[in-house]
Amino acid sequence: MAKAVVLLSGGLDSATALAIAHSRGHECFALSVDYGQRHVSELVAAAALATSIGAVEHRVIKVDLSTFGGSALTDLSTAIPAGGIKPGIPVTYVPARNTIMLSLALAWAEVLRSLDIFIGVNAVDYSGYPDCRPEYITAFENMANLATKAAIEGAKLRIHAPLLNLSKAQIIEQGNLLGLDYSLTVSCYQADEAGRACGVCDSCRIRRAGFESAQVPDPTHYRPLFP
Amino acid sequence: MAKAVVLLSGGLDSATALAIAHSRGHECFALSVDYGQRHVSELVAAAALATSIGAVEHRVIKVDLSTFGGSALTDLSTAIPAGGIKPGIPVTYVPARNTIMLSLALAWAEVLRSLDIFIGVNAVDYSGYPDCRPEYITAFENMANLATKAAIEGAKLRIHAPLLNLSKAQIIEQGNLLGLDYSLTVSCYQADEAGRACGVCDSCRIRRAGFESAQVPDPTHYRPLFP
Repeated sequence: MAKAVVLLSGGLDSATALAIAHSRGHECFALSVDYGQRHVSELVAAAALATSIGAVEHRVIKVDLSTFGGSALTDLSTAIPAGGIKPGIPVTYVPARNTIMLSLALAWAEVLRSLDIFIGVNAVDYSGYPDCRPEYITAFENMANLATKAAIEGAKLRIHAPLLNLSKAQIIEQGNLLGLDYSLTVSCYQADEAGRACGVCDSCRIRRAGFESAQVPDPTHYRPLFP
Repeated sequence: MAKAVVLLSGGLDSATALAIAHSRGHECFALSVDYGQRHVSELVAAAALATSIGAVEHRVIKVDLSTFGGSALTDLSTAIPAGGIKPGIPVTYVPARNTIMLSLALAWAEVLRSLDIFIGVNAVDYSGYPDCRPEYITAFENMANLATKAAIEGAKLRIHAPLLNLSKAQIIEQGNLLGLDYSLTVSCYQADEAGRACGVCDSCRIRRAGFESAQVPDPTHYRPLFP
């Protein structure tokens, strides 16, 4: 079984990416990045998902991106928008997040001698994020293939983004087919300590619409006060 | 003055890169990465250098790459070679280090709205490192130009590697012309707490040969027991 490093945030997309990597026969090494996000319930969810889906190992690496500020996800003085999805790049965008996370995955892949990295980015429902586009993933892969010992030795590393062109509903359908327990995932930008979702941030709205569209019961734990 | 993010390890090369960025009229934001290296004297040196050279700000971001292992610089159970420079990639190579450091610089640059990142990589004296080659730097720049908000808005980000094709002696000559105080720099892979060098690791050997070749007095603080 070829080893794969899978970025696992604890959200719906990355959990599905892990389930897909596992279903393709990879020995999966799940990597979560503690980047100073508002809540740790995402990381708790990631640990449960890694076990549930069958990763052979789960590690959490801490990088405090709040050092730089610039995002509502790491800067507590910026409010999470709750009024509905707007066009353009949202304030919840974290500068260079996917580049940093893929770089960390690359480091672990190099140590493990793995040539496969999975990331659950999605260009359909997150078209506002520059680092969720297919041309970005290809450019990262090209760079990675010049960056490592393995590259010098002629091996070819691949960045797999199996959700890239799927809608949220299609992602949920795939995960369902693979037996993924979505009640373990936390997508909310401002989940509470128990991992319960607010229901009104962009991430909650996109997720709920996805379950509706896929005609799958929504297993999300919402807060009691959800209107 | 255009803002530039400059990666600053505290060693000779990155200090020279900072001096060059400053001499080109950039407002310099120095970034050090605490990646779990064996000693912190490098980071202490970086702070002194940032002030001495005239950076407007210096930040340290922590990423514990010892989480992954794989390098003598982060793994205390692997010895630093002291017997002289060998061909091939040395055990002091840190997996994906430059990719991770450039990614972090990219995040800060995005927040600062800076389009210039400086890194003191050098392809001449470190030809064993895959991520010190010109084609790698170009590939990172291409990726970065697809990764950010600025990229979407049409701005062009540049990765400057002004030492790329210089020998160690030429680097020292440039820094000397710019008034850089090399006694503040720490290059040794196993410096002690006071920043004093071992004199026998690869980094010490390359550095000392550079001063000799440049015919510049070596200001390095060696440990008293240096043979």
